Amino acid sequence: MIQTKGYATQDKEAKFKPFAFERRDVGPHDILIDIVYAGICHSDIHQARAEWEPMVPSIYPMVPGHEIVGRVSQVGGEVTRFAVGDIAGIGCFVDSCRQCPACTGGIEQYCVKGSAQTYNSTEMDRVTPTYGGYSKQYVVDEKYALKVMAQGDLSGIAPLLCAGITTYSPLKRWGVGPGKKVAVAGLGGLGHMGVKLAVAMGAEVTVLSTSPSKEPDARELGATGFVNVRDEEAVKAAAGSFDFLLDTISANHDYNVYLSLLGLNGVMVIVGVPTEPAMLNAFSLIGGNKVLAGSLIGGIPETQEMLDFCADHNIVSDVEIITPDRIEEAYDRTVRSDVRYRFVIDMANA
Amino acid sequence: MIQTKGYATQDKEAKFKPFAFERRDVGPHDILIDIVYAGICHSDIHQARAEWEPMVPSIYPMVPGHEIVGRVSQVGGEVTRFAVGDIAGIGCFVDSCRQCPACTGGIEQYCVKGSAQTYNSTEMDRVTPTYGGYSKQYVVDEKYALKVMAQGDLSGIAPLLCAGITTYSPLKRWGVGPGKKVAVAGLGGLGHMGVKLAVAMGAEVTVLSTSPSKEPDARELGATGFVNVRDEEAVKAAAGSFDFLLDTISANHDYNVYLSLLGLNGVMVIVGVPTEPAMLNAFSLIGGNKVLAGSLIGGIPETQEMLDFCADHNIVSDVEIITPDRIEEAYDRTVRSDVRYRFVIDMANA
Repeated sequence: MIQTKGYATQDKEAKFKPFAFERRDVGPHDILIDIVYAGICHSDIHQARAEWEPMVPSIYPMVPGHEIVGRVSQVGGEVTRFAVGDIAGIGCFVDSCRQCPACTGGIEQYCVKGSAQTYNSTEMDRVTPTYGGYSKQYVVDEKYALKVMAQGDLSGIAPLLCAGITTYSPLKRWGVGPGKKVAVAGLGGLGHMGVKLAVAMGAEVTVLSTSPSKEPDARELGATGFVNVRDEEAVKAAAGSFDFLLDTISANHDYNVYLSLLGLNGVMVIVGVPTEPAMLNAFSLIGGNKVLAGSLIGGIPETQEMLDFCADHNIVSDVEIITPDRIEEAYDRTVRSDVRYRFVIDMANA
Repeated sequence: MIQTKGYATQDKEAKFKPFAFERRDVGPHDILIDIVYAGICHSDIHQARAEWEPMVPSIYPMVPGHEIVGRVSQVGGEVTRFAVGDIAGIGCFVDSCRQCPACTGGIEQYCVKGSAQTYNSTEMDRVTPTYGGYSKQYVVDEKYALKVMAQGDLSGIAPLLCAGITTYSPLKRWGVGPGKKVAVAGLGGLGHMGVKLAVAMGAEVTVLSTSPSKEPDARELGATGFVNVRDEEAVKAAAGSFDFLLDTISANHDYNVYLSLLGLNGVMVIVGVPTEPAMLNAFSLIGGNKVLAGSLIGGIPETQEMLDFCADHNIVSDVEIITPDRIEEAYDRTVRSDVRYRFVIDMANA
């Protein structure tokens, strides 16, 4: 076994502390990644603080982190896609059954047996705990690792592994591109990626936010419109305007208001997970033949496609780099949306 | 003007009584239909009893009825599609702006100016009230009338004009056909049409109902499965089973339970309108990449396509024929689901 170190929390109220643990030895199909950066995703906070229980149980000690980028330092004998020195990424899952229609179809996140999450989960043996990216190293089967072509600063790459694919996948699925009017609701870690990606795909993008102060940022990211959703007149004026709405808001909010902004046959996709169920009025969907859909990250092939798309379009996440002793502070600031737009932990120098 | 007679209610608590009123003279593009049967749709009851206010105001005196079939007795000089003696139908709307993208695209129900509803509405002049099918005659522009090829008994045709197209349109849009596992929730006027149509399209159909007593009927209509949604074990056993779910329930119900029955990428379409908003959990859509969509009747071209499909497949609605003096009784029985499956008023002999 490989002795390694990370930062773990021991229960839902504990602080993060250095944590020594073991990774498996590098098997024939595995690569060992020396982690350079790990992004802080809002779902790290939900799980570290046990906020998604009982739906998603929290397992302690927990080393969160599923937005991982690093350098390959060892490869197994059968590895073909990676060489020592390559840059590699790991996203939200590190294994799956590999046989069900979802796995063979490249949407492993929907594995019928349940994929092995990068942390707060177990390997497919359902016994060995998985520890995430707030750590020095990760051993992963090369099939579940992503190739990162970018050189230079890697900090803005890490968040692509979750925030990037979470927003890229629904934009692609629902045909966002030139001639489409797209709204992105919420300008946080997910939302700012949604804006960058939709703009790069050629769409006309408007940001919907409850914070009028975010308008300059929205425009700098490429949005050509901004609607303060707390302004009833502005919402009324924008009614029926959009072909597609990407809802990245994880606070509780009224879906009916956002659906009213869609035009005929409009599509709204939810990628944020509010803690409370929302009230939905049937007329909000029936009047206008509208669609409300969900989307969960993306499979390995699409995640690779997204990374390549981002490399081609020079898209990275806007990040604030922190040292691991500031995780709690970063969590608190993330919860109050005080980050533009993603915290990334510098693990190389930890 | 043409002097005609119908049955109207004067306010939300009044009984239906004979009502004399005028139809416009037959213009060059109009046809005059001598109404033979008018179906009783649940939305007639909602509007007659002002249950959809304030969203849909009720205008009195109200002559409901938008499931109309009858014989053409007069045609205008420019009419090309109908001749005296033809069988014609009228659905939920009788005119629209004819110029917006929805109108020119054949989805007139979404006319941006608002189409003229068959009753409880006005003509496009926004002044002249429209009176519906609980009457002896209707004058309509031939563009907004449907051709009915069926001969013989017309009673089962009338409900196709609303219940038929309301269920046909989403089944077509979302690709229901051979190899698809389809659930139809609610076995009433809409639901029994949904079952017949989905079966005729080649799908494997299961009925979801809170009334186990409806199982024999469901199977007779062509369903091969039946799930009592009040039975938690049965619901659990059916989780993830369906590609498509047509939700025809107009009583308040939990969308999350029905969404749990969909498999990966599954689609649920709401065509019933509960009086209260429903609670929706974001995980119900995100886990499984699912879609919740609305659908509102259908445009003229698709309504004609549906009528032709029904004629080809010998599909009619199961009906109970009543005389107009029994409208209240029929309303009360419809509300408590005591009809298999649609009341139709015999207007020819009224």
